[in-house]
Amino acid sequence: MTTDTAAAVPVFSWPVRIYWEDTDAGGVVYYANYLRFLERARTEWLRGLGIDQSRVREELGVVFVVRDVAIQYQAPARLDDELESTIDTVERRSASMTFVQRILRRSDGAALVTARVRVACVAAADFKPQRIPESLFSL
Amino acid sequence: MTTDTAAAVPVFSWPVRIYWEDTDAGGVVYYANYLRFLERARTEWLRGLGIDQSRVREELGVVFVVRDVAIQYQAPARLDDELESTIDTVERRSASMTFVQRILRRSDGAALVTARVRVACVAAADFKPQRIPESLFSL
Amino acid sequence: MTTDTAAAVPVFSWPVRIYWEDTDAGGVVYYANYLRFLERARTEWLRGLGIDQSRVREELGVVFVVRDVAIQYQAPARLDDELESTIDTVERRSASMTFVQRILRRSDGAALVTARVRVACVAAADFKPQRIPESLFSL
Amino acid sequence: MTTDTAAAVPVFSWPVRIYWEDTDAGGVVYYANYLRFLERARTEWLRGLGIDQSRVREELGVVFVVRDVAIQYQAPARLDDELESTIDTVERRSASMTFVQRILRRSDGAALVTARVRVACVAAADFKPQRIPESLFSL
Repeated sequence: MTTDTAAAVPVFSWPVRIYWEDTDAGGVVYYANYLRFLERARTEWLRGLGIDQSRVREELGVVFVVRDVAIQYQAPARLDDELESTIDTVERRSASMTFVQRILRRSDGAALVTARVRVACVAAADFKPQRIPESLFSL
Repeated sequence: MTTDTAAAVPVFSWPVRIYWEDTDAGGVVYYANYLRFLERARTEWLRGLGIDQSRVREELGVVFVVRDVAIQYQAPARLDDELESTIDTVERRSASMTFVQRILRRSDGAALVTARVRVACVAAADFKPQRIPESLFSL
Repeated sequence: MTTDTAAAVPVFSWPVRIYWEDTDAGGVVYYANYLRFLERARTEWLRGLGIDQSRVREELGVVFVVRDVAIQYQAPARLDDELESTIDTVERRSASMTFVQRILRRSDGAALVTARVRVACVAAADFKPQRIPESLFSL
Repeated sequence: MTTDTAAAVPVFSWPVRIYWEDTDAGGVVYYANYLRFLERARTEWLRGLGIDQSRVREELGVVFVVRDVAIQYQAPARLDDELESTIDTVERRSASMTFVQRILRRSDGAALVTARVRVACVAAADFKPQRIPESLFSL
């Protein structure tokens, strides 16, 4: 019933394994690459709802673009680490969605990254803002 | 004397050209890749002060790691675009630096991305926080 | 008993899903990124043999580096595609391994990429060639 | 008059600086990333001939895709290294071009990477092979 409990049960979680491609010469994951992991979770959450973004673009003519990200890096991930990229909350508005996400280390549950990501719906052709099509989430 | 004037004269600016590698199937630059461009500017600003990060790590045993980023995506960059990755302000503390940065399109000066990035100094061996070595900026 | 039959039963196969991060403005996967997928399969094949590369480096002081790649791109992968990154044959020598690999599209089994990758064992400290430690594959 | 002399004077050369984004936890440049550097040189060589690929796609409806790559990794590049990505020879056919390329370390001229890359002209819409438009190189 508390926020802690809520945070402990993400809406969605997607496993991420760290490969050489993800790391940098500091011996840890390069800071931009966590944004990839955050997006994989958003993409798979949509897919789990029956929403394939390639089909959405073709059939509805819209794509989702990231408008802003606030991200905190608490501890580094390293080669071979197993992570979970979570979606803790999703707030839907008419033309955008805001996700609170974390990246957790599976071995001990430590939160390595916390992020807030706002995603807007735009026309694929000219990137102008669009309402999220009603059909999208009415499955 | 106004904020606009200040913004118009960045502390530092570094050119970025958009290649296929930077773009995604939406036809625009992938959102995580702007973090690379922001870092190139920080790296080159340091280099301009005589600070090579590979040497800093070897000789002083410290590296800089990003602690948090707040980034707004205002308009997309596309293949072949020429951009400027700027540092507008740098705020130095004893163990961290905060950068206000933008990514501008050269053809019309439009700001595509605005970001605030806090970077901490840590020991290369264990990533524990360290004071920024005095010798670093006393050149 | 034929080569075709052999090719149809890879030594190892690892699933790969295509995300926005993998694609470029041509609407297909960027050509360098297939090398990432090939490596994920090699890494997971080693892991399946009980060999974690981060542990190998720490305990035995060696890493594997790619010496040469010959890669043919036969058809493009696209956003949301499900692929298999396979290892069809592995040839082990004293200080190197040569992998024949393919990247297949799951929906129809089409081979999108075929590659031959030679990987050498080197000392982590100075990248000088080393024999592959006997203990590595004697599990 | 010798091959050495020929190799010493590339058709085209483009500078590449190594940033954190290019490296991996082995302390060197990740093997797939050299393919990015090779492509930057091809892109800039085309641009030097007045050919912008984004305009070629819009106006002529064709794109260039890589068909095969044979690449040898001779020595690793590291953080802060200054490299040259060269085109040593270009062989043009009606529907493809083959590039011999190298990546050199500026400090000592050492060849870190040697590659042979074949690029085909295809229709942007369906990726079917096309003749290279005559207008392209007739400037």
